Amino acid sequence: MSKILLLSTSSVHGAPYLEYCTPLLEKYYQGIKELLFIPYARPSGLSWEEYTAKCAARFRKMNISVVGAHHIENNPERIKDFGAVFIGGGNTFLLLNDLYKYSMIDVISKSVGSGDLQYMGTSAGSNIGGLTINTTNDMPIIYPPSFTALALVNYNLNPHYIDPDLGSKHMGESRQTRIAEFHSQENNTQAVVGLREGSGLLIQDGKTMLTGGLSARIFEPSKKPYEISPTDDFPKI
Amino acid sequence: MSKILLLSTSSVHGAPYLEYCTPLLEKYYQGIKELLFIPYARPSGLSWEEYTAKCAARFRKMNISVVGAHHIENNPERIKDFGAVFIGGGNTFLLLNDLYKYSMIDVISKSVGSGDLQYMGTSAGSNIGGLTINTTNDMPIIYPPSFTALALVNYNLNPHYIDPDLGSKHMGESRQTRIAEFHSQENNTQAVVGLREGSGLLIQDGKTMLTGGLSARIFEPSKKPYEISPTDDFPKI
Repeated sequence: MSKILLLSTSSVHGAPYLEYCTPLLEKYYQGIKELLFIPYARPSGLSWEEYTAKCAARFRKMNISVVGAHHIENNPERIKDFGAVFIGGGNTFLLLNDLYKYSMIDVISKSVGSGDLQYMGTSAGSNIGGLTINTTNDMPIIYPPSFTALALVNYNLNPHYIDPDLGSKHMGESRQTRIAEFHSQENNTQAVVGLREGSGLLIQDGKTMLTGGLSARIFEPSKKPYEISPTDDFPKI
Repeated sequence: MSKILLLSTSSVHGAPYLEYCTPLLEKYYQGIKELLFIPYARPSGLSWEEYTAKCAARFRKMNISVVGAHHIENNPERIKDFGAVFIGGGNTFLLLNDLYKYSMIDVISKSVGSGDLQYMGTSAGSNIGGLTINTTNDMPIIYPPSFTALALVNYNLNPHYIDPDLGSKHMGESRQTRIAEFHSQENNTQAVVGLREGSGLLIQDGKTMLTGGLSARIFEPSKKPYEISPTDDFPKI
């Protein structure tokens, strides 16, 4: 059975990388000794090696060793040698482009689906866990061969979800308006889960739980957006 | 010779649609009696007809009649019957997708280039005046056949440019960081002009002028971003 953790962000303001969710991670990675890290999203243009080193330093505290995906890229089947994969945040378009380029989409999707590979994503890495990347917040710095993503869940994600700033004088659209525009296209029938920073979705034993204490905002086509709290049953969307 | 006006936004906070730039528009549209309006960007999901009506109401004050592009879409060559085209803001992906769908890219690009068609864009409509839409802020609600845009100028635009909010606790990337990520890709060699709300670029008589009184921010690969003021000569980028 699939085991998936989709986090809105890797860091919350004022806390070091992946520290805010330490108890969650320690439980999630019980029994895992080695992790495959996919650094392709390259936040702020970090190199694959630099980004992998940052990840490795964090997981060393949990006695988990980290291998960067760029060390296995000529052989995506090697992903199956790992029990866990973590896809870090950065630019969603670049990430998805490289997952296609290195033929990793199918093997990740199938291995997570069969329960052989536990998945974690942060930010862009969570976004691509959804059906498509049509609801990313990122700048489209590269044209990927498709917007279709890993489809580990049957909805879309909007990480770093932020409520409209009613005091703002800036005329850019609010996140909620953007998601409404997404649903104004009749082919976009999937729901969108807006995950606030600090939140995550933990999917295991056939159940979905909202982590982090905050509520999440659910957008379905032709429905008023609504909130769910961590104690609510996750809706059938 | 080309005559092009690329505005960062159609409205500034607290002012009605296209009112903040009235003197500029009155001068720009001197001698124009009829305008082709392209409503495909559909802000907030407005229909083509609703959006065209909004535009027509504004231009009526200048005694200019407005025809919506959806009334000529089966014959893009009819664009040549007009002396002026205005592409309104909304979603850049949807806009570009429909310009490809209705085969309007080449005819607009060529007619503006030859000086037969004067161009105005606001927001998404300015974005697509650049080489590509790789530096849009919009949500990718639809997958267009390409990110290549009208290329009326030899750089990219970032409308609604906003400076980093140093007080923010939100972990989403600043606009400047996003544009740096764009330039971290070696194929992205073009400069990006960050246009603050209220600003525009007026291109006529072979010259580019920055309108609206504010400075603009220029991003070139491997260079520190810099500001230009409306009294500066526009840089060769």
